[in-house]
Amino acid sequence: MALVVMKFGGSSVADIGRIMNVASRVVESKKAGNNVVVVISALGNTTDALVQLAYQITDHPPAREMDMLLSTGEQISVALLSMAVHAQGLEAISFTGSQVGIVTDSAHTKARIVDVKAGRILDELEKNRVVIVAGFQGVTLDDHITTLGRGGSDTTAVALAAALKADLCEIYTDVDGVYTADPRIVPEARKLDRISSEEMLEMAATGAKVLQVRSVEFGRNYGVVIHVRSSFSASEGTWINKDDSRMEKAIVSGVTHDTGEAKVTLIGVPDQPGIAARVFRRLAEGNINVDMIIQNVSENNVTDISFTVMKEDLESSNRIMKGIVDELGAKGLHTDEGIAKISLIGAGMRTHPGVAADMFSALAEEDVNIEMISTSSIKISCVIRAADLKKAVNAIHKKFGLEKGVVMHE
Amino acid sequence: MALVVMKFGGSSVADIGRIMNVASRVVESKKAGNNVVVVISALGNTTDALVQLAYQITDHPPAREMDMLLSTGEQISVALLSMAVHAQGLEAISFTGSQVGIVTDSAHTKARIVDVKAGRILDELEKNRVVIVAGFQGVTLDDHITTLGRGGSDTTAVALAAALKADLCEIYTDVDGVYTADPRIVPEARKLDRISSEEMLEMAATGAKVLQVRSVEFGRNYGVVIHVRSSFSASEGTWINKDDSRMEKAIVSGVTHDTGEAKVTLIGVPDQPGIAARVFRRLAEGNINVDMIIQNVSENNVTDISFTVMKEDLESSNRIMKGIVDELGAKGLHTDEGIAKISLIGAGMRTHPGVAADMFSALAEEDVNIEMISTSSIKISCVIRAADLKKAVNAIHKKFGLEKGVVMHE
Repeated sequence: MALVVMKFGGSSVADIGRIMNVASRVVESKKAGNNVVVVISALGNTTDALVQLAYQITDHPPAREMDMLLSTGEQISVALLSMAVHAQGLEAISFTGSQVGIVTDSAHTKARIVDVKAGRILDELEKNRVVIVAGFQGVTLDDHITTLGRGGSDTTAVALAAALKADLCEIYTDVDGVYTADPRIVPEARKLDRISSEEMLEMAATGAKVLQVRSVEFGRNYGVVIHVRSSFSASEGTWINKDDSRMEKAIVSGVTHDTGEAKVTLIGVPDQPGIAARVFRRLAEGNINVDMIIQNVSENNVTDISFTVMKEDLESSNRIMKGIVDELGAKGLHTDEGIAKISLIGAGMRTHPGVAADMFSALAEEDVNIEMISTSSIKISCVIRAADLKKAVNAIHKKFGLEKGVVMHE
Repeated sequence: MALVVMKFGGSSVADIGRIMNVASRVVESKKAGNNVVVVISALGNTTDALVQLAYQITDHPPAREMDMLLSTGEQISVALLSMAVHAQGLEAISFTGSQVGIVTDSAHTKARIVDVKAGRILDELEKNRVVIVAGFQGVTLDDHITTLGRGGSDTTAVALAAALKADLCEIYTDVDGVYTADPRIVPEARKLDRISSEEMLEMAATGAKVLQVRSVEFGRNYGVVIHVRSSFSASEGTWINKDDSRMEKAIVSGVTHDTGEAKVTLIGVPDQPGIAARVFRRLAEGNINVDMIIQNVSENNVTDISFTVMKEDLESSNRIMKGIVDELGAKGLHTDEGIAKISLIGAGMRTHPGVAADMFSALAEEDVNIEMISTSSIKISCVIRAADLKKAVNAIHKKFGLEKGVVMHE
């Protein structure tokens, strides 16, 4: 008997009809002989509606109270789904993140899971019940409710799968898998049958919205097999981390993009040891994730530092940076929200020189200027103008023949 | 420094404007030097909306899942109120019933508080914070969320006041106190300045909606001083259980009514020992509260048993009673939803014979037929036709001169 964690996002439970549909899929899986744990998000736009309510009261709602508020969204959906499964004749029981011991740190609104106590869920599975757990939320050791940030339900699902040693974690979503590029931008984009967790991690980190980065990290660290598939069809989606014995691997697996970042430039900073450390430690203390960092070559012992942050963190970042400008005697601060990041992902590229050059050529051929570059062993990212995004993604997708599903020998 | 528990109902927090208003009252009380604990209900009609959602899924939602669903209503309002108090410059922290250790039995949807762990609240008061607690909800010892039934927030407030040894429990509501009768029915009805907890208990039990019965029980058992007053004005309301040194007491303090009950009659039951016990034990096992019970004089060893239940319990009651009809060989079952109960309350009546006779005369003079009678030492209740209710309440109110605030010497 397999233990399966099934995760459904907000669009899969947007109304009563869809909740009944999710219940049917859950009942089907249970009747097929699986032990089933379900993780779900809040109904449709509930979370946004709650956020709006808070901002009607104050521009600066305390993060702890925000979590108290937002965590109700998932609590509503687990109760309703449990009722729907009951109505279809199976026993089900719903739990909050707190009740099943999803322990997090205390970084409210973007908490990280530090422990999952699997005992209570295993007890309920033992009683032959479908266990339905609220995604996106947890609890600190001193019993304050936390949330994991947008997309946190993916992380809940994969973390539960890891803690329960589940055979499989199914992520049901409104697309039918992971694509070589966003099909809304590249019509020729192709669904991937399999992808390694390392590549998926880079794809998620660079803008593929299908899975939250931290969920992929959990999956990689604990060897969780993940199947990303559609809530609305029975067809196979994309398998991540599945035992893959193919000898042939593609050099590149996809192009991703992200328009959610902004570029911040600190102008005219004294070029002394410890300056960068001070800047980025201060941002880290403000719980701001910095993505790309570029430091210019120094002129007259003065340099510029540029980095990218999520647009939603820009205001907090600016508050911190203004203090730093004064402290360091920098010449100024410049922010730019008109950028986009485009990334090429592929486990094969580390042994294939020339991939970066091909990518830059593809951009040059379309007259796209590159403002920042950052590389890892399986990824190349470029910051460009947001207005150039569509032609850039298409050019790169075509340059590497991603629409053809070409497989290169390593 | 006094410790005050302030309770606000759903209509006091029906929209953002009213939440801000409640926050102002809370801040005012805190700034006046009090330690403040706030208990609130769900926003306006939230609870009804959630119930509707559940019934869109199934006609028989499991009670445990219903509690999971409904408890989100108060969680939303405590988070928002906490934000509003913060926005007005004071520190506040919100908690669910579970988080502050409001321990209940496991009778889902109508659980009873069995213990309140005051420690966490006292710790937060120590930090000079306003503590905001979700009303209406608790948690079982094995960590399932429960709710206390409609009006349960009153009980939460009074139980917290008892556990915290608060100086005062203020119940803010949309009326400005306890009246000698419902002012919508009796225009001459008069606000009572004070009332004993015993009288208040009978008034609440017989239909005065201003306080939930169990909250008054808690108040009486633990000597909690309660002040029922308006959320929308600063004027004094009605004090319950306050040290009362007046030598003069009114014979009767009010007339209440209740149209929420239905009459059930079991016809042609064999008149044997143990029959009534069987009937009412079965109803108790179904968690159905029975109010009045009448057994007719037996004829030919066969009798009729009539009782009243809340209309919302009538369907469950009928299910149980149909089984009993067959078991006992009774002749039939009759239900009647067209009744009303009218009650006269007064601590003075136990030493004043003739009160019952005066009440029955008042009804007779208006041609109102009495179908059932039940008495206690401080209360007389009659079941009459619902259609006669208005004239009956007015007649009794007038008969005892309640509009005049007449005080009789005991």
